[in-house]
Amino acid sequence: MNAVVGDVSGNEARIAELITRAREVGAQVVCFPELAVTGYPPEDLLLKEHFLADARAAVDRLAAGTEGIVALVGFPERATDVYNAAAVLADGRVAGVYRKQSLPNYGVFDEVRYFQAGTRPAVIEVDGVTVGLTICEDIWQPGPPMTEETLAGATVVVNLSASPFQAGKALEREHMIAQRARDNVACLAFCGLVGGQDELVFDGHSVVFDHEGRVVARAAQFAEDLLVATLDPTAARAARLRDSRRRPAARGVQPQVDHLGSFAVLGDGHAPSPRPAGKVADLLDDEAEVYAALVTGLRDYVHKNGFDHVVLGVSGGIDSTLVALVAVDALGAEGVTCVIMPSPHSSSDTQSDARALGANLGVQVLELRIEELMDGYDALLAGVFADVQPDITEENLQARIRGNLLMALSNKFGWLVVTTANKSEISVGYSTLYGDSAGGYAVIKDVPKQLVYRLVDQRAKRDPQSPVPGEIVTRPPSAELRAGQRDEDSLPPYEILDAILEGYVEDDLGREQLVARGLDAEVVDRVIGLVDVAEYKRRQQPPGPRVTSRAFGRDRRVPITNRYGG
Amino acid sequence: MNAVVGDVSGNEARIAELITRAREVGAQVVCFPELAVTGYPPEDLLLKEHFLADARAAVDRLAAGTEGIVALVGFPERATDVYNAAAVLADGRVAGVYRKQSLPNYGVFDEVRYFQAGTRPAVIEVDGVTVGLTICEDIWQPGPPMTEETLAGATVVVNLSASPFQAGKALEREHMIAQRARDNVACLAFCGLVGGQDELVFDGHSVVFDHEGRVVARAAQFAEDLLVATLDPTAARAARLRDSRRRPAARGVQPQVDHLGSFAVLGDGHAPSPRPAGKVADLLDDEAEVYAALVTGLRDYVHKNGFDHVVLGVSGGIDSTLVALVAVDALGAEGVTCVIMPSPHSSSDTQSDARALGANLGVQVLELRIEELMDGYDALLAGVFADVQPDITEENLQARIRGNLLMALSNKFGWLVVTTANKSEISVGYSTLYGDSAGGYAVIKDVPKQLVYRLVDQRAKRDPQSPVPGEIVTRPPSAELRAGQRDEDSLPPYEILDAILEGYVEDDLGREQLVARGLDAEVVDRVIGLVDVAEYKRRQQPPGPRVTSRAFGRDRRVPITNRYGG
Repeated sequence: MNAVVGDVSGNEARIAELITRAREVGAQVVCFPELAVTGYPPEDLLLKEHFLADARAAVDRLAAGTEGIVALVGFPERATDVYNAAAVLADGRVAGVYRKQSLPNYGVFDEVRYFQAGTRPAVIEVDGVTVGLTICEDIWQPGPPMTEETLAGATVVVNLSASPFQAGKALEREHMIAQRARDNVACLAFCGLVGGQDELVFDGHSVVFDHEGRVVARAAQFAEDLLVATLDPTAARAARLRDSRRRPAARGVQPQVDHLGSFAVLGDGHAPSPRPAGKVADLLDDEAEVYAALVTGLRDYVHKNGFDHVVLGVSGGIDSTLVALVAVDALGAEGVTCVIMPSPHSSSDTQSDARALGANLGVQVLELRIEELMDGYDALLAGVFADVQPDITEENLQARIRGNLLMALSNKFGWLVVTTANKSEISVGYSTLYGDSAGGYAVIKDVPKQLVYRLVDQRAKRDPQSPVPGEIVTRPPSAELRAGQRDEDSLPPYEILDAILEGYVEDDLGREQLVARGLDAEVVDRVIGLVDVAEYKRRQQPPGPRVTSRAFGRDRRVPITNRYGG
Repeated sequence: MNAVVGDVSGNEARIAELITRAREVGAQVVCFPELAVTGYPPEDLLLKEHFLADARAAVDRLAAGTEGIVALVGFPERATDVYNAAAVLADGRVAGVYRKQSLPNYGVFDEVRYFQAGTRPAVIEVDGVTVGLTICEDIWQPGPPMTEETLAGATVVVNLSASPFQAGKALEREHMIAQRARDNVACLAFCGLVGGQDELVFDGHSVVFDHEGRVVARAAQFAEDLLVATLDPTAARAARLRDSRRRPAARGVQPQVDHLGSFAVLGDGHAPSPRPAGKVADLLDDEAEVYAALVTGLRDYVHKNGFDHVVLGVSGGIDSTLVALVAVDALGAEGVTCVIMPSPHSSSDTQSDARALGANLGVQVLELRIEELMDGYDALLAGVFADVQPDITEENLQARIRGNLLMALSNKFGWLVVTTANKSEISVGYSTLYGDSAGGYAVIKDVPKQLVYRLVDQRAKRDPQSPVPGEIVTRPPSAELRAGQRDEDSLPPYEILDAILEGYVEDDLGREQLVARGLDAEVVDRVIGLVDVAEYKRRQQPPGPRVTSRAFGRDRRVPITNRYGG
C-alpha cells in the first residue's frame, strides 16, 4: 500500500477498500504496512495529540468493517505513552494491539524520538493457526519477539514494514527474512510500504516465505498490490518435530507472549492442509531498481504535493538527460517542460542535442537565451567590481539567471522545478546555490555520476529506438559556464572521484584508510576538503530520493560548522 | 568554554590553557563542558572511528598536564560501544571515566543515535571531599545518578553541560539546579558550554549553588570565563545531620556507585572549612538575552566558518534594521556591508532611512538599482508570458535579482550573506525562495515579528543617541514588491499572527484548541494552511540561531509531503 503521510482519511478509505478486496478473494488475514493509517514517517505530527486521536478514530472505524477477516493495521497508539503499533481488527472490533519492540534510531530513522518500545511479544489464533505479530525492525534482530512468538507456537509470523529502499536492499531483505524463517521454522509474511515520502522511497516488495525460507509469493517492487499467498502452517508445525535446533532455547522457558484473541474466519472446522501458492514477481536488476526508485520518488513527490507538471533546464548533458527520462516515465510527456537556456558558452552541439532529446521524448521545449541578462548584471555590478577580475562569480550568475527563469515559470504556471545535479557534484559542491540547485525536488541528488551513465544506458535500451542522442553519452562532461570548460579541469576523473566519495561518504573512512585503499593522497585530501566545505550548500538543496546506503540529509548528518577535516 | 565542533586540537589547546590557569588560581577541581574535546553536537562525526581515536588521544595528552589539580573533561569515549563521557584527569593520567546515563533524544537532541547509556553513577574523592559526576541531561531528571552519588556521600556534584539556549532558559535552569541541590543537600556546580554551533546557541551560564540552593558564583552569559568558586562541603555534610528527608531513600540501600579515585591536591591535611565565595554576574533580562544569543550565534557562525565580513540587503524596514544592528555588534562596523537595492516600488522614505541607518552604524553602504534587470527578465519572458497577467511571479523576480546581487558580492569578495526574514514571515512562507532567503546565515529566522520590534527597541536604547531612524519603527511593514503593498494586505496583523503561530508551532495545538484560545477560526485555518504549505521553503533556508522553545529545523521536524493540515 502506498500510504500518504498525514492523509488519515485517505489512508483509512484505502485500507477499507483493500480489506474488502482481501475478503472477496478469500483471505483469512490481511496485513498492512507499518503506520499505514498515518503514512511513514509522520515525524513531528506524532507530537500532536489531535493527530494521534484522529489516527485512533480511523482504526476504530476500520474495525467495524472486519467481519469474516482479520486485518492487521499499523497505527501510532496513544496510551499513557505512544507506541508504534499494529491493531488486530476482527469481528468488528479492535481485538488487541501489538507494540513494536525494536525502535530504529540510526541512519534515516528517529523512532526513539517518538515512541516508547513495547515489551510483549504477541500472537493471535486464526482458524487454529497461531500467528505471531512483528513490526519492521523487530525482525532485523535475530532474537525476540519472533523467537518468543514461534516458541509459543506461532507457525506464521507477519511483519508490518516501512523499509526504505537503497540499492541492493531487496536482496538483502530477502536473505534476512529467509534466514529468520529457517531459524524459527516458521512462515514469514513481510508486508512493505510502497511510495515516495520526501527523501525516502519505499519499494513495497511484499514477500511471503515458507518455513524453509523459500519464496511463496512476491509482489512487484515499487507498485501497490494486494498480494495473495496461501501457506501451509501444518508443514511448519510438522517440521519442528524433525528439527530439534530450537529445543534448547525452549527448554524450561515459558515465553512471555500476549494472546490477543482467537478468531474463526472459515467457520468451525480447520482448513485442510493447503498447498502453498502465490504469484512470484521477479526482482528488478540493480540499475532497473534504482531507476524505478527515482521514478517512484519523483512521481509521488509531485502528485502527493498537488502538482502534475515539472519543469527542468536541459543542457544536452548526461545529468539533465537522465532527469528528463525519469520525469517522462513518472509523469508522461504531457507533464514535463524542458527549458534550454543557452549562454555564449553553450556549444551548438549541446544545444542541438538538448532539442533532439526534447523532441524524442515529445515534451514541451522552451528556449530562453540568457546573454542579455548576463550583460545586465555585469553592467550593474561594473562599478563595484571595477578593480577585480572576472572569476567564478560570473559563472555563478549564469546559473542563477537560469534558476530565476525556471522559478519564474514555476511561479507563473504552477510547475514544480526539478533539479539535475548528481551526487558526485553535490558532494564536492560543484554546483551553484540558487542556480542549478534551485527547485523543489532534486531527482538524482543521491546518484553518483558513474551510475548516472549506467541508468541512462539501461533506460535507453528499453526503447526499440533510443531517445538519447549518442553524443550526450560520449561527450566529456562540462558545465559550459566559460569557454572550453570541462569538469575534469576542476575535479578528478569521475571514476576516481566516485571511489573516494564512496569511501568517505558512504563508509565514513578517514584519509589514511582511503590512501590504504590505493587512492592518491593528494587527491584524497582535496576531495575531503571539497566535501567538508560544501556542507552549507547541501543543507539548502531540495529533497530528493535516497538510493544509496548513505544519502546526504536525513541519513548523513554532519555539522556545517566543523573544523575536523576528514 | 567555547569549544569548536571538530577542532580537536584547538579545543585540546584551550583546555590545557584553562587547566593551567585554574591551577594558578588555586583550584582543586576544574570542570569543562560536555564533549569539550570535540565540541557539541559533533553529529555524525561520531560515526568515524578515527575521529573518536583523535578525541581519545587528546584526552590522554591532556591527562599528562594534570599535576596538582583534578580536571573533568567531556569527551566521546570509544569502548566496545560509544559513550558521552567525562574523563577524570589527575596525577598525570586518566584516572577514570564517568558515562552519561540520561541520553536526550527529543527537541534538538539525537543522542540515542550516537551513544550507549552509562549505567554506573560515579564519584571521586578530592582532598577528602566526595564529588559526584554528572553530564547535562543527568540532572534534568530528579533521580539517579545524582541521588545515588549523594547517598554514597557526595557533598559536591559537578555537571558537565552543553545546554542550548532558548528564551527564558537560564532562569528555568537555575530553578531546576537549585531544587536538585536542595533535594540532595549537595552543592552543585553547573559548567555550561558557550558559543554558536549552526542552529544552536549555548549561553554558557556556568553557575555554582550551595546545598541550600543559593547561587555562590555565576559566570556572565554568552561569554567564555574561568569561573572560580569556593564551596564548603562540610556544611552540606553537617546539614544532612539535621535533614532527615533523605534517610528513607537511603534505608537498606547500598548505592551502586563507582569510586573513580582519591586525589590529594592540597596535600595530606584536609582544608579547613572554607567560606563559600565566587563572583556573581547578573542574569540578562528577556530581550537582552535573546539579543545576545543572536550576536553570539552570528559571530560564531561567521568566525568558526572562516569569514570575517557579512553583507546584507537593507530596505529601511525593521527586520533588516535588526539584522544590521546584530551584525555590527557581532563583527564591528568594519565587518559589515549593507546593500540598498531599490526598485520602482521602493519609497524614497525607506531608501533614505536605509541610508541613514548605514551612516549611523558606520558601515559600508552600496546601492544597486534593480529596475533594468527587472525589465530584462520581463523582456526575456514576454513571449512565454504573453497570455498571462502579472502576478506574484514578478514580485519574486525582484527578490531573486536582489538575492543574485548579494551572492555575486559574496562570491567576489568572500563575504557571507546574512538574510533578514523573521520567524513570522518564514512560518507562513511570506518570503521568496532564492530571493530574500538566499544567504549563509538567517540571523532572525527564529524571532517572531513582535519580538523583532522589542529587540530593536532595547538595542536602540543602549546608545545615547539611537542609530535607528524613528520611522523604521513606526512605518507599517511592507515588502515593497508592488505599488502600495502592505504586509497586512496578505497576512493578519502580526499580534494575531504571532499568537496563532505560538500556539500552532511552539505548542503543537490543533485548530480546535486555537479557536478555544479565542482566535478567529477562519484566520486560524488560513494561517495553518500557510504554515503547512511553506515547509518546502523552510527546508531550503540557511541555518540561524534558535531562540524560542521550538525552532524550525532540528527542533520542529515535519514532513514536506504532508496532507494532515493541522
